[in-house]
Amino acid sequence: MGKYLAITGGVGGAKLALGLAQILDPTDLAFLVNTGDDFKHLGLHVAPDIDTLMYTLSHLSNPDTGWGRAGESWNFIDSFAQFGGETWFRLGDRDLAVHVRRTMLLEAGWRLTDVTKVLYQAVGIDYQAWPMTDAPVHTVIDCDKGSLSFQHYFVREGCRPIVRRLVYEGAESAQAVCEFHSWLTDPGLAGVIICPSNPFLSIDPILAISDIKDALHNCRAPVIAVSPIVGGEAIKGPTAKIMAELNVPRDATAIAAHYGDLLDGFILDEVDAGLAGAVRLAGIQVAVAKTVMQTLDDKVNLAHTALELLELC
Amino acid sequence: MGKYLAITGGVGGAKLALGLAQILDPTDLAFLVNTGDDFKHLGLHVAPDIDTLMYTLSHLSNPDTGWGRAGESWNFIDSFAQFGGETWFRLGDRDLAVHVRRTMLLEAGWRLTDVTKVLYQAVGIDYQAWPMTDAPVHTVIDCDKGSLSFQHYFVREGCRPIVRRLVYEGAESAQAVCEFHSWLTDPGLAGVIICPSNPFLSIDPILAISDIKDALHNCRAPVIAVSPIVGGEAIKGPTAKIMAELNVPRDATAIAAHYGDLLDGFILDEVDAGLAGAVRLAGIQVAVAKTVMQTLDDKVNLAHTALELLELC
Repeated sequence: MGKYLAITGGVGGAKLALGLAQILDPTDLAFLVNTGDDFKHLGLHVAPDIDTLMYTLSHLSNPDTGWGRAGESWNFIDSFAQFGGETWFRLGDRDLAVHVRRTMLLEAGWRLTDVTKVLYQAVGIDYQAWPMTDAPVHTVIDCDKGSLSFQHYFVREGCRPIVRRLVYEGAESAQAVCEFHSWLTDPGLAGVIICPSNPFLSIDPILAISDIKDALHNCRAPVIAVSPIVGGEAIKGPTAKIMAELNVPRDATAIAAHYGDLLDGFILDEVDAGLAGAVRLAGIQVAVAKTVMQTLDDKVNLAHTALELLELC
Repeated sequence: MGKYLAITGGVGGAKLALGLAQILDPTDLAFLVNTGDDFKHLGLHVAPDIDTLMYTLSHLSNPDTGWGRAGESWNFIDSFAQFGGETWFRLGDRDLAVHVRRTMLLEAGWRLTDVTKVLYQAVGIDYQAWPMTDAPVHTVIDCDKGSLSFQHYFVREGCRPIVRRLVYEGAESAQAVCEFHSWLTDPGLAGVIICPSNPFLSIDPILAISDIKDALHNCRAPVIAVSPIVGGEAIKGPTAKIMAELNVPRDATAIAAHYGDLLDGFILDEVDAGLAGAVRLAGIQVAVAKTVMQTLDDKVNLAHTALELLELC
């Protein structure tokens, strides 16, 4: 058994990450996480995708909301509203502690990579999870309401604005963390899995960092992706809506085409089995599986499918 | 009925402040509050005495602890501990919102005076309460453990170190807020009440600001104080302990002597009625009352005594 890298963004990606963590040891699995959604709020450094993965892997996540912690309390934000503070971004009492701690360590000069490590260790996670970069990269949504920062588009505006273009500010000068490069050049690397996260909002910010994209292109291990589009719809979030707005055909083959020659393999949902031939024509190996992950078994089964597909590639 | 100013620090002072607010309208009563205890913690501007008065006047205070809010929850600080944060200064979930809001407004360039006003209004307080200054003043405790900031001495070290000297850093260049000067030069001013707060830790930082001390000396209205020492002991906090360490006689007359010629009147507790003659010898009017305020009636009764004594002066 070799080493694997999973590339992930928000909730959908974290589900497969959890499945992979059920069958792979921390010595054999690491995560590269989107930080294009990171933003400063109430003076705090909030890193939504790093935290979604942390809460998911530590079984602290809220299964109802898809974000934040289970059994969370909201006394801070309710009180903040009473004192005139803005509340469109709901920060739970327990969750808030993570942002305060992260901010203090960053202000003390720590790398985000090292901050993430101590936060993950605090909740018992031994897997390595690296922010895509320690540099600031900001996903900006160019839309019919002008240029919106990610959280303003996603949370405050509820993804309603019509997307024209996505910009990953800072990506051109950002570099991946050295731990990523070490892992990707490890002779034992057996494969890279792009999790079923939103390609435009969660994965493209990562791929916009040129040394990450180059390293993925040049690595000897195969790269596969899991389609976040099932039957022409996104399981969660605005992926399908954005595809329509960007005039991308709204089906799983468009996701495979989007990642292009980065991919050696692609996992389609069972309902999209009929699209397998079209993807194979592009020279990409295909597996068909149940990709909608509701139970832990669903997550583990999809993780097994991913490892099997990587063996075929 | 004229206008009154109450000078106050922490819990004891806030009790009399509440009594005064029961019998005087916001047009006739204002508060000058110690900010020597203010400090930056977790990147937040914490102003303990301003908040103690706010929670007391709005009936949100925790009667058991004497600080913070009633019915508070502690999920933030517990989570913060889990993530490796320091927890010697316990911040409640609801209370935390005040510090975040205050910090944001200060960083936006607001005066602490104006921040305090909007915070107080948010919980329905119409009384004016001014920080002693908008400038940073820090009470530093020179003690057998070296120089400690106020909160390190008071909270982290639990007042155990032996005090040698108190320093009010920044007081020499600080100025009172203009609202204070307007109030104190108002022809309707009928009196100033120094609440039964710790003279060394809560009142002296205020008096260390020269234009406050000068304005109190020069104002035509009488100035009185309520003894925080009852039967040689402090009702709460380290006042008596500090008096012993500073070689000040540990009784109420020493408090009157400490304020010296600033005072026109002094309120002694019933148990100290025997000291009245000694205080009067110094040319200070004396009232004897129940100064230990347990019930709201106790607070109101002491407030009435204060106003009556001011009429006599």
